[in-house]
Amino acid sequence: MKKLLLIAAAMGINVAIANEGMWQPHQLPEISKDLKKAGLKLNAKDLTNLTGFPMGAIVSLGGCTASFVSDKGLVVTNHHCAYGSIVHNSTKENNILENGFLAKEFKDEVQASPGSRVYVTEDIVKVTKQVKSGITDNMTGTERYQHIDKIQKQLVAECESNKDFRCSVVNFHGGLEYYLFKQLMIRDVRLVHAPPRNVGKYGGDIDNWMWPRHTGDYAFYRAYVGKDGKPADYSESNVPYQPKHHLKVNAESVSDGDYVMVIGYPGRTNRYRTANEVKNTFTESYALTKELMGSLIKSIKDNSEEGSNERIGYESLIAGLANYEKNRGSMMESYYKGTTQQRKSALDKSLRDWVNESKSRKNKYSSAINELDELVKEGHANYQRDTILSFAGVSSMLSASERLYRLALEKQKPDMERERGYQERDMTRFTQSMKAISKRYYAPVDQAMLMNLMSRYAKLPAEQRNKDLDRFFNIDDGYSESRLDKKLSSMYAKTQLGDEEKRLAWMEKTVADFEKSEDPFIQYAVKTYKARKALEDAEKDLSGKLNAVRPKYMEAIIAYNKAKGLPIYADANSTLRVTFGNVKGYSPKDGMYAVPFTRLEGLLEKETGEWPFKSPQKILDLVKKKQYGDYYKKEIDSVPVNYLSTLDITGGNSGSPTLNNKAELVGLVFDGVYESIIGDWDYDPQLNRAIHVDSRYMLWMMEYVDGATNLIEEMDIVR
Amino acid sequence: MKKLLLIAAAMGINVAIANEGMWQPHQLPEISKDLKKAGLKLNAKDLTNLTGFPMGAIVSLGGCTASFVSDKGLVVTNHHCAYGSIVHNSTKENNILENGFLAKEFKDEVQASPGSRVYVTEDIVKVTKQVKSGITDNMTGTERYQHIDKIQKQLVAECESNKDFRCSVVNFHGGLEYYLFKQLMIRDVRLVHAPPRNVGKYGGDIDNWMWPRHTGDYAFYRAYVGKDGKPADYSESNVPYQPKHHLKVNAESVSDGDYVMVIGYPGRTNRYRTANEVKNTFTESYALTKELMGSLIKSIKDNSEEGSNERIGYESLIAGLANYEKNRGSMMESYYKGTTQQRKSALDKSLRDWVNESKSRKNKYSSAINELDELVKEGHANYQRDTILSFAGVSSMLSASERLYRLALEKQKPDMERERGYQERDMTRFTQSMKAISKRYYAPVDQAMLMNLMSRYAKLPAEQRNKDLDRFFNIDDGYSESRLDKKLSSMYAKTQLGDEEKRLAWMEKTVADFEKSEDPFIQYAVKTYKARKALEDAEKDLSGKLNAVRPKYMEAIIAYNKAKGLPIYADANSTLRVTFGNVKGYSPKDGMYAVPFTRLEGLLEKETGEWPFKSPQKILDLVKKKQYGDYYKKEIDSVPVNYLSTLDITGGNSGSPTLNNKAELVGLVFDGVYESIIGDWDYDPQLNRAIHVDSRYMLWMMEYVDGATNLIEEMDIVR
Repeated sequence: MKKLLLIAAAMGINVAIANEGMWQPHQLPEISKDLKKAGLKLNAKDLTNLTGFPMGAIVSLGGCTASFVSDKGLVVTNHHCAYGSIVHNSTKENNILENGFLAKEFKDEVQASPGSRVYVTEDIVKVTKQVKSGITDNMTGTERYQHIDKIQKQLVAECESNKDFRCSVVNFHGGLEYYLFKQLMIRDVRLVHAPPRNVGKYGGDIDNWMWPRHTGDYAFYRAYVGKDGKPADYSESNVPYQPKHHLKVNAESVSDGDYVMVIGYPGRTNRYRTANEVKNTFTESYALTKELMGSLIKSIKDNSEEGSNERIGYESLIAGLANYEKNRGSMMESYYKGTTQQRKSALDKSLRDWVNESKSRKNKYSSAINELDELVKEGHANYQRDTILSFAGVSSMLSASERLYRLALEKQKPDMERERGYQERDMTRFTQSMKAISKRYYAPVDQAMLMNLMSRYAKLPAEQRNKDLDRFFNIDDGYSESRLDKKLSSMYAKTQLGDEEKRLAWMEKTVADFEKSEDPFIQYAVKTYKARKALEDAEKDLSGKLNAVRPKYMEAIIAYNKAKGLPIYADANSTLRVTFGNVKGYSPKDGMYAVPFTRLEGLLEKETGEWPFKSPQKILDLVKKKQYGDYYKKEIDSVPVNYLSTLDITGGNSGSPTLNNKAELVGLVFDGVYESIIGDWDYDPQLNRAIHVDSRYMLWMMEYVDGATNLIEEMDIVR
Repeated sequence: MKKLLLIAAAMGINVAIANEGMWQPHQLPEISKDLKKAGLKLNAKDLTNLTGFPMGAIVSLGGCTASFVSDKGLVVTNHHCAYGSIVHNSTKENNILENGFLAKEFKDEVQASPGSRVYVTEDIVKVTKQVKSGITDNMTGTERYQHIDKIQKQLVAECESNKDFRCSVVNFHGGLEYYLFKQLMIRDVRLVHAPPRNVGKYGGDIDNWMWPRHTGDYAFYRAYVGKDGKPADYSESNVPYQPKHHLKVNAESVSDGDYVMVIGYPGRTNRYRTANEVKNTFTESYALTKELMGSLIKSIKDNSEEGSNERIGYESLIAGLANYEKNRGSMMESYYKGTTQQRKSALDKSLRDWVNESKSRKNKYSSAINELDELVKEGHANYQRDTILSFAGVSSMLSASERLYRLALEKQKPDMERERGYQERDMTRFTQSMKAISKRYYAPVDQAMLMNLMSRYAKLPAEQRNKDLDRFFNIDDGYSESRLDKKLSSMYAKTQLGDEEKRLAWMEKTVADFEKSEDPFIQYAVKTYKARKALEDAEKDLSGKLNAVRPKYMEAIIAYNKAKGLPIYADANSTLRVTFGNVKGYSPKDGMYAVPFTRLEGLLEKETGEWPFKSPQKILDLVKKKQYGDYYKKEIDSVPVNYLSTLDITGGNSGSPTLNNKAELVGLVFDGVYESIIGDWDYDPQLNRAIHVDSRYMLWMMEYVDGATNLIEEMDIVR
């Protein structure tokens, strides 16, 4: 490897230093040499202290990351992470999504969207022993699943005895290790500042996952607490939260090759899947998923007029499906063009060979590897049915009825024994989700999507189908699409679940009430419950079985990687991670090089006068006049807008601060390039690039366009 | 300017050295310093000797350029320049277009397509004085035009008294200077070698004018002469021509930044047009032209089934129109995005200011500048009609009838007085073009295209239309499309011009025969002749008037440019020119850089298994195995396929050898990038890039794929 690098360097080829790895904070001292070599000026050990600097400044928004940038609880994140709050506060008269928003004083700050939270991780405790205690080898998959589930719930309940905290137990390496995360949950979150949509979401869906990029994807929140300093519900008398630490903002940003790191909460990766899992996913599951998403978009569009209120209600679902479709499309493109499968298969073989080379390794790992293969086969056998049913949630009627009936059933048990999502701690979210249905529900679209899914289901071989489901929807030898369509039409004509008040009322009803109901969707939920529960149980059983095998497999992988000098870090699981690397361009295709910085002038090039390429006139005027102010960067003869780095990120990292080698904020990570989407499965040092909004651009916008000088004054700017 | 360069250099920005200029060989000593600075190792004076090295090795194919690469008359050019000959020799049984062609011995070489010629420029004589003698200020435009035309014809006739030569008088700077070109015309041209279409035309229309590029656009001819060494018609007893000079082929090719030059025959540029001419062209003429070409393609496609023989016959016209449409589209895109108009307008103003600053300059140039403006206005007044009628040639029936009748009329005059194109020297080509109609003529398509044009014509304001034309096509107040359609239908039903034999027979008929004919297209030609002749005469009159004014304007421009230190070279006019510059990438858009070389691996990336991205399996196998042979280039870790340079080229340069600083062949120029198409009007040093096929790729292909080792042995390869 080293020799190869030397040869490449001699040839003048840009050698990408592999910056693969989403590191748990406690791992950093182990790789302190690499961190130092990459350019870090801090002590790696300092990064393990969750309540110290800089870790204490990093927070989760649940699904996104953010960071404190003042001692008065000012939080910076991505525009797309604050999107819900921006939309929530937009009215026809005061369209802050279009025009942007700036509170010049604290009193002008507005409440974020309902349910918005700032989570400050205060403790991470390894609880593997506790979780695994009592597990025996002769447990069935279901037993194992339930045993682990129960202990996890107990640990969480114990930890959450102080209601200011939100806790979770998360497994690493497929169940090899477990950690308990304890987060302070701040409930009064307010919107402070957001640029206009034509900056914050510049490029829209067209530029999504694309380079060159020119998006000002930043926004500011503020965390508020009660006068006692403790989390509190919204109140005028609340005061800004005083974080123990906050980040300084570096107005010089970075240059090509500079050290950067991102601390945040990456959602999910699949870096250690077996060759067969990869093959199953890319050649079958993703292909079907992609096709299905395209077809669901068609179902929506065919049944709601463009520009109508009904269509507008579904725009976010369309955007989500399209986004997902593009994501899957990119992954399949990369998969078929690239060498992922060959390498995964080679690794598989190499791992087996290595295991078989030694008797002790063989005894230890061999059966787990083979069993995993069997379980993977089992889990994939009904992938068509499972994929189709996994989309059932797009039908609000179907999912609402299922969840409401389940709630009635779960309520019969003590809180601790209830299924996740149906415990008392979940009820605020549950109510919100039942209310949210009203925002988009339009029966013809809901019906068309359900018809789309059920007609696919009906065409599956009988052995994949379920008798109760078949019976309810009259799927038998005499099946025809028109008959199914008639059935659904009558259901949608009669159901009253579309009415918000009536829907919410079902949250308080008993199982007996459900069983008596003549609402066709409630009937559906009752009559197919057993069938659906059976599928769920089978899934849990498989999950339990995998839990007995995958940790062993991961042990083998870890031993193998250690032996081969390969990096060992856990797959992303929405917990706090650190990734480090360098600012760096890449070659998206032969003959082209994506340079690491875009410039303000790119906004003039892209300008079409129409969304999503319509910059505010003020920006265009300033750029034409080259009014770069203090944010001019000599190397590119302009103000940098976005930049590329080798960092290993994924969804959930959005909003994460990008830090320089002194842990000063030099940008916000908000996306990856198209070629790196497959990175969730396979990090390629040549193609994996994260996209950051440059702190210079953010400050330039705030100072010269948005007039957010109050915030610039509030933050500690390093110039 | 100089200061700006220094600042830019200090900032680390890549400063493009402007390599604008298509230099006449005699100009090179004037710019010898620039040539030396750019890297030329030869003496600039050597390049002025047309029959010396290297000029003597450069030849014209008429529309393309080529060069001798052996002492046995071996000629290398672009695949797309030899395309007609390749198609001509392709049969179903031996499809050399698909499979490529290689003559392993001289006897296997096949005749190029009829009319193929190799022109060796032997002399260039300035004849301005002769052409301008006898011109007086009080001549009308027509008189002036005819006077000049007559002298030019006399000079050509005199020069062509030796039938081995082809001569032409060409004007420079809009008539400021005239040169007589004398070219040895070799008539026995044979095809020696061409790669498969999937190499020579790799990327097809999709990649046309695009970067990144991976086209092996090369092919080989051989020039044959009689045993006496003089040009002769094809005969088995002919022998290979022995050129005085031929180029060595450099197998090392070039690196980023290296000096390169192209010697060739660029067709036409418009670098010195007035601001109004530019505006008229881009905002009106090109917009209409582009729309018209798209609509003619539709006329063809709507009236011939895809894959049918009829459609196949029109494929080259479709390709030509699409190519042209893309060309115009790019120019308009660049025009509207860029600053061409602002700069042209600023130059216009600056020129006028400069002229008005001095009394003597004012007296000398002022009236010419104003008159030119008036003539430009006059010439553009009927641009819609002129544009529509300029496409009339797409209708084979219309153009054949017009040309045949004109031939009969011209034949009444002595040869010297005939219109160009109707002299005895033109008869071979004339016959060929009349025969060529049979290859594609399909009445429904011909009629649809004519209907397309005539229905546009009919909608023009009456003052733009012509009474005779109107009368013939029944265009009056009662005009309707259906009536016109009926008229055309009856014409196509009755005409016999579609029959090749009958069509050719008209070449021998008299004016009286035409006047008696009842063929509707012959009738059309006779009855509308006066009208069409009047338009032609008006055009000639305008041309004569321009000829009195534009040279004066160009004198002003030249004086102005000299005063400002700007380059002064004549617009391209299909005569021998030299352009020099460097290998260099460019930034097609903010955030992206087109690197100067593409690599063999790009073929794997682009591979789709379908035309135009289907490489021969042998290539794919070799590339996968990294079998680079002697043509490996360290800097890019592969064999270079195509490269970019700053050279100032245009159509007609195709096939030109790309030479290094010792005038060794290092590639063939074959295209420009999309952003440089507007270069015909406005050279932008940041965006103007020529695309070359790398000599390494050509040799790699010949050695490892095509097995053309006999040719490699025949050439002088510098390794």
